Amino acid sequence: MKLQFWFEYGSTYSYPAAMRIEDLAAMRGIALDWNVFLLGPLFKAQQGMSDSPFNVVPVKGRYMWRDMERICAKSALPFNRPAIFPQNGLLAARATLAMEPALRPRFSKAVYRANFELNRDISDVATITDILASMEIDAIAVLAATNTPEIKAALKSQTSQAADLGMFGAPSFVTPDGEVFWGNDRLEDALDWCEHGT
Amino acid sequence: MKLQFWFEYGSTYSYPAAMRIEDLAAMRGIALDWNVFLLGPLFKAQQGMSDSPFNVVPVKGRYMWRDMERICAKSALPFNRPAIFPQNGLLAARATLAMEPALRPRFSKAVYRANFELNRDISDVATITDILASMEIDAIAVLAATNTPEIKAALKSQTSQAADLGMFGAPSFVTPDGEVFWGNDRLEDALDWCEHGT
Repeated sequence: MKLQFWFEYGSTYSYPAAMRIEDLAAMRGIALDWNVFLLGPLFKAQQGMSDSPFNVVPVKGRYMWRDMERICAKSALPFNRPAIFPQNGLLAARATLAMEPALRPRFSKAVYRANFELNRDISDVATITDILASMEIDAIAVLAATNTPEIKAALKSQTSQAADLGMFGAPSFVTPDGEVFWGNDRLEDALDWCEHGT
Repeated sequence: MKLQFWFEYGSTYSYPAAMRIEDLAAMRGIALDWNVFLLGPLFKAQQGMSDSPFNVVPVKGRYMWRDMERICAKSALPFNRPAIFPQNGLLAARATLAMEPALRPRFSKAVYRANFELNRDISDVATITDILASMEIDAIAVLAATNTPEIKAALKSQTSQAADLGMFGAPSFVTPDGEVFWGNDRLEDALDWCEHGT
């Protein structure tokens, strides 16, 4: 009985969700299953888009950046608009899958901070190496694993699963009985559903 | 000092917002300014879409219909998926602008019920006539006014204002200091902003 948390490292609204979800779930005694995936292939397959909808539709992008400022202020999260958007989360996603599941939440939160607080390039090996080193994880082993067919296939499988579950954006949450909730602002609804089934 | 509530009659998520907003605003002593507009011209101009994004992107549509069921159940609102989606809200929108502002909230809620509870065709003169009659409004006068250049221009002006305010979807809320919030699930945030400025 776990709530599945599906996220993409380039996704703005996944950042506050990743920073908020552990405390909110723990308060209710709900276990979490962190699932990284890539949103780009879904945008391409479902909407024919090769870029974030926030870049494709400028009026949506302007709203989103202001909204992120408000949300992060409300949740007391540091926020600095990254110079590059969306960042390429491929390396970070593969690195996530190359480590033990128990280590992933801490790593994922550090990647989000690198992207949305520290304005670091999360596609850069140096950034990922720094994060792994700060966690005392063997960075050379993890980075080597990101180039293996097994890890590449594991990420493709995650992305396929996300599509099969009916996802089209991030963050998304999937309850044990299969309800999908989309968006940081629906995290509380997803937790409510886990507790009460409504 | 009023919270502006911007809505489109074909918009699914505008329905729960329209049914919830008066009680929530009254509890906080916040006055409301109801503003009807047409979303179609914005979708066309901003995204090149000639249909609802929920039809253009089927996976989003499937999510939305399930989400509407959940939201309406949670808010104890009747909900029946309309046979036609999106319905054409042009006549209802013009009729709204042809009556006194004080009458509009009640009329608008009746239009939403016709669309999302009663599965009636809101583009049909008979539906609008029934609603006006139930409110003891002179239906003939209102319907005649919907064909005047003044009312047609008033609706165009509403839609232009919505675009100028940075809107791209409905429902949207605009605070007295100009913050825009988008979506039924952001209504509480918009009211919080009115009260506290955060």
